[in-house]
Amino acid sequence: MLEREITNPIITPEQFPNAMEGFEVFGTFNAGATIHDSETILLVRVAQKPIQKGSQIMVPFLDLDNKQIVVNGLEKSNPEFDFSDTRVVWDANKKFIKYLTSISGLWIARSKDGIKFSFDSKPFIFPETEWETWGCEDARITKIDDTYWINYTAVSERGIATALASTKDFTSLERHGIIFAAPNRDVAVFSEKLNGNYIALHRPMPSYVGTESIWFADSQNMTHWGNHKFVAGPRSGNWDSQRIGAGSPPIRTNEGWLEIYHGADDSNRYSLGAMLLDLREPWKIIARSSKPLIEPTEKYEKEGVYPNVCFTCGHTIVDDEIQIYYGIADRSIALAKVSIKETLDSLS
Amino acid sequence: MLEREITNPIITPEQFPNAMEGFEVFGTFNAGATIHDSETILLVRVAQKPIQKGSQIMVPFLDLDNKQIVVNGLEKSNPEFDFSDTRVVWDANKKFIKYLTSISGLWIARSKDGIKFSFDSKPFIFPETEWETWGCEDARITKIDDTYWINYTAVSERGIATALASTKDFTSLERHGIIFAAPNRDVAVFSEKLNGNYIALHRPMPSYVGTESIWFADSQNMTHWGNHKFVAGPRSGNWDSQRIGAGSPPIRTNEGWLEIYHGADDSNRYSLGAMLLDLREPWKIIARSSKPLIEPTEKYEKEGVYPNVCFTCGHTIVDDEIQIYYGIADRSIALAKVSIKETLDSLS
Repeated sequence: MLEREITNPIITPEQFPNAMEGFEVFGTFNAGATIHDSETILLVRVAQKPIQKGSQIMVPFLDLDNKQIVVNGLEKSNPEFDFSDTRVVWDANKKFIKYLTSISGLWIARSKDGIKFSFDSKPFIFPETEWETWGCEDARITKIDDTYWINYTAVSERGIATALASTKDFTSLERHGIIFAAPNRDVAVFSEKLNGNYIALHRPMPSYVGTESIWFADSQNMTHWGNHKFVAGPRSGNWDSQRIGAGSPPIRTNEGWLEIYHGADDSNRYSLGAMLLDLREPWKIIARSSKPLIEPTEKYEKEGVYPNVCFTCGHTIVDDEIQIYYGIADRSIALAKVSIKETLDSLS
Repeated sequence: MLEREITNPIITPEQFPNAMEGFEVFGTFNAGATIHDSETILLVRVAQKPIQKGSQIMVPFLDLDNKQIVVNGLEKSNPEFDFSDTRVVWDANKKFIKYLTSISGLWIARSKDGIKFSFDSKPFIFPETEWETWGCEDARITKIDDTYWINYTAVSERGIATALASTKDFTSLERHGIIFAAPNRDVAVFSEKLNGNYIALHRPMPSYVGTESIWFADSQNMTHWGNHKFVAGPRSGNWDSQRIGAGSPPIRTNEGWLEIYHGADDSNRYSLGAMLLDLREPWKIIARSSKPLIEPTEKYEKEGVYPNVCFTCGHTIVDDEIQIYYGIADRSIALAKVSIKETLDSLS
């Protein structure tokens, strides 16, 4: 029933035209999605990596004083660090991440047909604040009335937190600061209020106690969140056994809120599944995918910067069809289409 | 200048009269403090441990279905677990805590002189909700108008989160749910609003990125928090090099908000120091202790369940004097008195 776009991957790093000087683009992935003025808008995470030189590992970050991205070199022989993961630099005990080896910003890509996209010439959200010195990642977009609310992961030495911004036109942008304190990511805001409050799914990251699970919260103003409830956790022995997180914003159906979420299994293989949440008490699960909707089976999903990853932050709805834009292997973006009705049927 | 009470420790597990059947009390410590109706009220964490039997490690938790504390036995030979820390049961890789070996509730102890206390016959806050199945720990009390706001650490398999309750009389209690999602503890609410909002310090716990640091947040209603700001982190090479967290609620002085906080060094030795926060922008630090105000030097501070710990959740103010009630070695409570003026002078 699920149909992958034949031209997948539809966005790859090779087609990104605006790499910073001295950097290469290694990932254009994990995009928020919406439709505005008849255009499909993707807010794409563009990860850029300093071009490596000699024996050093180059680590980029925002210099807050001078408001520019700078690059430091770390000697590969430095015993303080563990360089075994090419995406990050761990401390020697592999307990804390000390640096990232790339820095991400969020760029708008626009399309008339939802398949062929062109990037804007400038980033829409780029590291600027103390919360973003290591990057801005994984945007989700929720339209409520005439405002597009954008949440994204703000990464810095402060931690991994969720920031909020908004726009009405995808030209100007307003930042609203941190809405979920570190460590928290994978926030998906519902497109309708409940009892007068904004509502969202979020994903705290446990320290020592707990699992990476989906929680619910509500807010009167989009900036201050509370009324936390537990929604769902990983399921041992299943495709989502290790961790789960909200994907794109929930889709309202007559049967409930349909949420496409990601789950990783014990091998860190990321697939996408669905859960159906109660309309009146959206922290309650009515049904949940026993098998993934999308799992890494295609070559472009199984190979890449981080192989075997299907991870979504956004979709558009065209008639009864969900157009799922999903990041693959921390490298590119693919598109798959699935009918809402069939997805609901698959859950019952 | 700091004066320890000569009868320290003023509260010990031996004087707690109400152990549950089959349990022993191993800790009466980390108490919130206030004055109500001319009585000093401590809200004491009472940690009870199942009396061990045979070759098993006994782990207690709240059975939500039957609303009672039950105890499971784990074979010491079970390779799934690591029993090297007597307070908790780790998984074999020592990455996640799977159980606690004790369960804490919060009991009121009352005193006319602030030194000799007697416990109420029933707990004031005891594990009851899905967030508290592993215990209720480390209360802080802030009086605003005629309400005493109590926050405490709610521990369960969901994570380590901060819960809120309130009382006007220390007889009846109202619960208000989780105010800071896991992992977050060491929350200290200010006794005055700022620009019409409640304000608080909190302490997110990083996963992989960041340090255990003090953050600021505000709220219109005490339940929904936002406007997060970074206040202060550990200081490498200092007495607070490893992690810090708010202690008791900040004390208003003409020079700023005086906060007594805890810091642990690289050996996990916990001491207490002070920071002075700006009155108008209380996320800004005016001054901070270069040396601890209280560090574990007495025998009763250096020996116990978790040696070398001085950790405060509460104080009372009598004239110009701060009466600091502090937990020692995860076992007992001690009292020390220090003048506000001298503490401020020590910071300049």
